[in-house]
Amino acid sequence: MPEADFIERLRAIATHPAARGLADDAAVLGDLVLTHDMIVEGIHYLPTDPPADVAWKLLAVNLSDLAAKGAEPEGVLLGYPLREAEWDVAFADGLAEALRHFGVALLGGDTVSAPKGAPRMIGMTALGRSSHAPDRRGAQDGDGLWMVGAIGEAGAGLIIAQGAAGPAELLMAYRRPQPLLDHGRALASHANAMADVSDGLLIDVSRMAAASGLRAEIYLDAIPRSAALTAFAGDDRDARLAAVTAGDDYALILAADDSHIDAVAAIGAHPIGRFTAGDGLVVMDRDGIAPLPAKLGYEHG
Amino acid sequence: MPEADFIERLRAIATHPAARGLADDAAVLGDLVLTHDMIVEGIHYLPTDPPADVAWKLLAVNLSDLAAKGAEPEGVLLGYPLREAEWDVAFADGLAEALRHFGVALLGGDTVSAPKGAPRMIGMTALGRSSHAPDRRGAQDGDGLWMVGAIGEAGAGLIIAQGAAGPAELLMAYRRPQPLLDHGRALASHANAMADVSDGLLIDVSRMAAASGLRAEIYLDAIPRSAALTAFAGDDRDARLAAVTAGDDYALILAADDSHIDAVAAIGAHPIGRFTAGDGLVVMDRDGIAPLPAKLGYEHG
Repeated sequence: MPEADFIERLRAIATHPAARGLADDAAVLGDLVLTHDMIVEGIHYLPTDPPADVAWKLLAVNLSDLAAKGAEPEGVLLGYPLREAEWDVAFADGLAEALRHFGVALLGGDTVSAPKGAPRMIGMTALGRSSHAPDRRGAQDGDGLWMVGAIGEAGAGLIIAQGAAGPAELLMAYRRPQPLLDHGRALASHANAMADVSDGLLIDVSRMAAASGLRAEIYLDAIPRSAALTAFAGDDRDARLAAVTAGDDYALILAADDSHIDAVAAIGAHPIGRFTAGDGLVVMDRDGIAPLPAKLGYEHG
Repeated sequence: MPEADFIERLRAIATHPAARGLADDAAVLGDLVLTHDMIVEGIHYLPTDPPADVAWKLLAVNLSDLAAKGAEPEGVLLGYPLREAEWDVAFADGLAEALRHFGVALLGGDTVSAPKGAPRMIGMTALGRSSHAPDRRGAQDGDGLWMVGAIGEAGAGLIIAQGAAGPAELLMAYRRPQPLLDHGRALASHANAMADVSDGLLIDVSRMAAASGLRAEIYLDAIPRSAALTAFAGDDRDARLAAVTAGDDYALILAADDSHIDAVAAIGAHPIGRFTAGDGLVVMDRDGIAPLPAKLGYEHG
């Protein structure tokens, strides 16, 4: 697996404590939180997605990493390959709107010429501050697994963006994800570990468990499901497994000691499982243990 | 000019003082200095360039922006599109070597799948600290124009990389540029304005003059020239104009009040011109005013 070789080499040089072993959503250097995410045409968004929505998503996925570290966003740098003027200008206008919406400053970046016909790859670095940035690796044996946000809605929205009939609410969950900045800041001091769900709930929970040297149990029936999602995709085990393996949700997951139950629940998080000694992932529902899907979520490379 | 529309829109939203109107090499937020640069296959480097040299150059161009702000580098984030495993791994090894050489930490980043056949676009964000980060826009009427570093060597090296016979020294200037971090730190407190030369001396001086609302005069004969460059490219006006319009040098230019002459000279900078009231750029040598080349340097978009 070539990606593994590459990442392995990067991990070997990322020995600075701020890098958190490249196992976290962001680098944490004192109170600074830094993240860099790219989106690629045809992979992270559809070529037919409106450019303003692509700009929103690029900002939202970066801010979601900051949210997972309990950070207050300060600003972003943009790495942008110029291609078609009309698309580029619509992207810039959409970025302006999204930055205003989230109160985030554009601090700098770089524009380059993109070779004609090359798919767009747009990069963004986001900078924030957090007085307490929980690590993905910090879950403790016995911690509750909590989540806040919607699971599966963006995955349904992608199916709608590809042509299926469905409600605008789900399409917007895919095109205009909402980074949970307020929740992240409120939850940070209660969390032993926190991360955002970008590639799918199961894969992101399994990464938190593995990074913490623990096993995770997930109660499928405990995962909140909107009426719109149930109407669109159903509510049986298959529908629930589809939701927890779909990407682009930008929910937050956290591990918290039971002494924080009241506080975490009051912030609006839902208990959906538990971390225990061991390794791997167990998914269960009212019918017992669910067989793990072949793919727990989206994997790059 | 589509790029101008795009940049104009970004400038309109980059109102935070740290963004410096997007007119500087880097964003400066308190003592933090942040820069993001991308390199694109076929534009910033040749597809035949060794991957370890591409990694070196990506780091060097980012560190050069920090050098121009008198910053001490702390770390970088990498945005990397995975493509061919062999190239990717050689890039990672080269990046490890370059980071070690400059004592800079890899803090994080993102890897994505690159569509097959798409040209590589690799992004990097570098973070440093500077107690005094001169602005590109700060040159004063009457300031001397100074430079440190080599001009024209990377341009000659590019010709050699494309197949011409020439010395390894010039080829290395193109493939392994040296960011002038020590010079930048030493010069920062003496400079009213400072910037790095990435797209060509003339274009970068003209940008500093325009950003400062001034005119710049450059004395072509005062620009230092190595024996290797003179042997390779000659030493007449045409050769000198070719050198000052070639890119990738990563020299530093600065504007300094004459009260700093001794200090700036002691650091190793060379006086090559002056900023005066007015606008535009005048290039002169022993034969008088030189006609401005049609292209002052490399322009993107």
